[in-house]
Amino acid sequence: MTETTEPIYADHAATTPLDPEAFAAMRPWLTDQYANPAALYRSGLAARRAVEQARRTVAACLGCAPHQIFFTSGGSEGNTWAILNGAGRPGPGSRQVVTTGIEHHSVSGACAFLQKQGVTVCTVPVDAAGQVVPTALQAALARRPRLVSVQYANNEVGVIQDIPALAAQCAAAGVPLHVDAVQAAGHLELSLANIDYLTASAHKFGGPKGIGFLYARQPAALQPLIFGGSQQGGLRPGTEPVAQIVGLARALELTCARRAESAAAKRALAADFCRTLRAGWPQARFHSTAAGLPGLVSVGLPGFDGQALTYRLDLAGVCVSPGAACDNTGRSHPSHVLLALGGTAAEDALCTLRFSFGAANRPGHGAEAARRLLQALQNPTIQPH
Amino acid sequence: MTETTEPIYADHAATTPLDPEAFAAMRPWLTDQYANPAALYRSGLAARRAVEQARRTVAACLGCAPHQIFFTSGGSEGNTWAILNGAGRPGPGSRQVVTTGIEHHSVSGACAFLQKQGVTVCTVPVDAAGQVVPTALQAALARRPRLVSVQYANNEVGVIQDIPALAAQCAAAGVPLHVDAVQAAGHLELSLANIDYLTASAHKFGGPKGIGFLYARQPAALQPLIFGGSQQGGLRPGTEPVAQIVGLARALELTCARRAESAAAKRALAADFCRTLRAGWPQARFHSTAAGLPGLVSVGLPGFDGQALTYRLDLAGVCVSPGAACDNTGRSHPSHVLLALGGTAAEDALCTLRFSFGAANRPGHGAEAARRLLQALQNPTIQPH
Repeated sequence: MTETTEPIYADHAATTPLDPEAFAAMRPWLTDQYANPAALYRSGLAARRAVEQARRTVAACLGCAPHQIFFTSGGSEGNTWAILNGAGRPGPGSRQVVTTGIEHHSVSGACAFLQKQGVTVCTVPVDAAGQVVPTALQAALARRPRLVSVQYANNEVGVIQDIPALAAQCAAAGVPLHVDAVQAAGHLELSLANIDYLTASAHKFGGPKGIGFLYARQPAALQPLIFGGSQQGGLRPGTEPVAQIVGLARALELTCARRAESAAAKRALAADFCRTLRAGWPQARFHSTAAGLPGLVSVGLPGFDGQALTYRLDLAGVCVSPGAACDNTGRSHPSHVLLALGGTAAEDALCTLRFSFGAANRPGHGAEAARRLLQALQNPTIQPH
Repeated sequence: MTETTEPIYADHAATTPLDPEAFAAMRPWLTDQYANPAALYRSGLAARRAVEQARRTVAACLGCAPHQIFFTSGGSEGNTWAILNGAGRPGPGSRQVVTTGIEHHSVSGACAFLQKQGVTVCTVPVDAAGQVVPTALQAALARRPRLVSVQYANNEVGVIQDIPALAAQCAAAGVPLHVDAVQAAGHLELSLANIDYLTASAHKFGGPKGIGFLYARQPAALQPLIFGGSQQGGLRPGTEPVAQIVGLARALELTCARRAESAAAKRALAADFCRTLRAGWPQARFHSTAAGLPGLVSVGLPGFDGQALTYRLDLAGVCVSPGAACDNTGRSHPSHVLLALGGTAAEDALCTLRFSFGAANRPGHGAEAARRLLQALQNPTIQPH
């Protein structure tokens, strides 16, 4: 291993590079144009126009109305807001929220908060692939919960839920649905049919960190999570971060325009990776499938420690995560997602790596990442020099 | 008026230009370095180090410990979080929060939300200059409220509260104090003595929009407003926006280093402005004083409409606000701050302009802004050509 080893970033599920075109769109709003979008003079109105144009761009990408889009500080705020709004206030239905065991911590954390306030949290099971079991959801819906929260696609194993079908089930039962699309928005064409709340975060699809959006089907039914001035209809106040918003919109626009092409490229990288790894290490156990998020490979490597392998791969120039990045504070605890899947995934909860290919990669990176992983597996005692 | 008129930005209280040094500090984290600060590989650790170095910088500027600083999406989030945390949860003291009538809408909005949940909101009066009346605060403290929320300095008229004295009063009564320092942080040396929560927003002191911080004296007593992963001790989760955070810290560092010098420059600009305006328009009524925030002038112009004058000044190249920027959604309603001051300020609630000088100005801008205002006042029917 030499210092000239080409770096391979294979952690796009944790965060993506800021697209150069998104940065170019942001830049004037960071340097020359700084007026407050709430100001009445022309430079302020220009800032306001940029914010509202960005809102229209996002709405056009999703197929909704601009007033249904609220810019947030990211996925955690959006998920918290949607869940507290949908299940934390007085309203029809029982004081119950339905979710799954493989949600992001922002969803499970908001649900746990509601639980302390007397709301019942019903966790519907997922099958071994991570798919929500429709009959289990049906049983939960029969208890007339106030909200169902299901992710569009999972950040650790890439499983994609059949959201149109689940959303139709919720709609038939008259129960509002929140969809955490943070991991999906960079990959999939999202359908908003029968969805009441949908959250996304820009840094997962080539936009800047610290900005996201919430889609709300009925903005009039929203209560603020954050209080303040009249920005965003008074529902999500705070001086709008113009550059961040413009960067988000440009990144989403590019993501939508390039979706088919980039999905194919990501799938090819993942397929090369899997083929090369399987050939050299037949005992590898894959917890993701080719039908999941393009470019995401979750692989269990029994006998190895995921965290130690992550460090080894870093020295070999490959960036990967042993689980959801948010969990990696140095504490070695098993992934709740892998545990919830059961079977070999649960067995591998501490020996799994997530490779996620994307915009930072070029053809060949998939196979090369696998070759470097194989080196680490075959020479477990090698030290960096 | 020609197209070559030099623009004069006199609305620094609404937002400030991003300091070029702050942008320079941010830039690598927007382009080359994009790793998630929660990631385990070296580029992730570098991002984490940048975030924690920024936290240390902010803490050093304030004279507190880094673990007492939480990065937020801005002032509205910080104020909401502090007030809901300090007064919205079970705890000692009566279910009462004390505030003033001249707070930002994020404070009054959070208080109004608590009121709907059964919390009593006690609004202590301010005198004609906007100063909290200590005897009134004392009477309110005797009722053992759960929290007092007072701004450090007002965004519309620039009045600076005697926070050390008010904080000592609260501490003597054993009542926690929240201080909204959003408007003050760009100007004043903040004392944290006897303060339990303090909020600030970067774009008010030369940093980027969409990032701020909350100081919490006792982080262990915090409950999250936003749920999610383990970032920021699990108390303010979400992938940290590294560039935003680095920009905030650099801007605060520069603000603190240049404070005395820039305050003198801002005071000189404001003094020139007031002198020139007084000489040409003796009927102008000043609702700010030289003892208030440096560079901020609130001036009532009886017989004129503040919003119309704002448009006229824009055509003359001068950017000002007729009131707090957050209120300016086109609806012409009187400023709640001016109404709360009573007297001539209340009379002038619809005919007041706020000039706020700062980093975008050079010597001469104060007097020139006044001359252009005088032209507008003396030729009320002039049309742009």
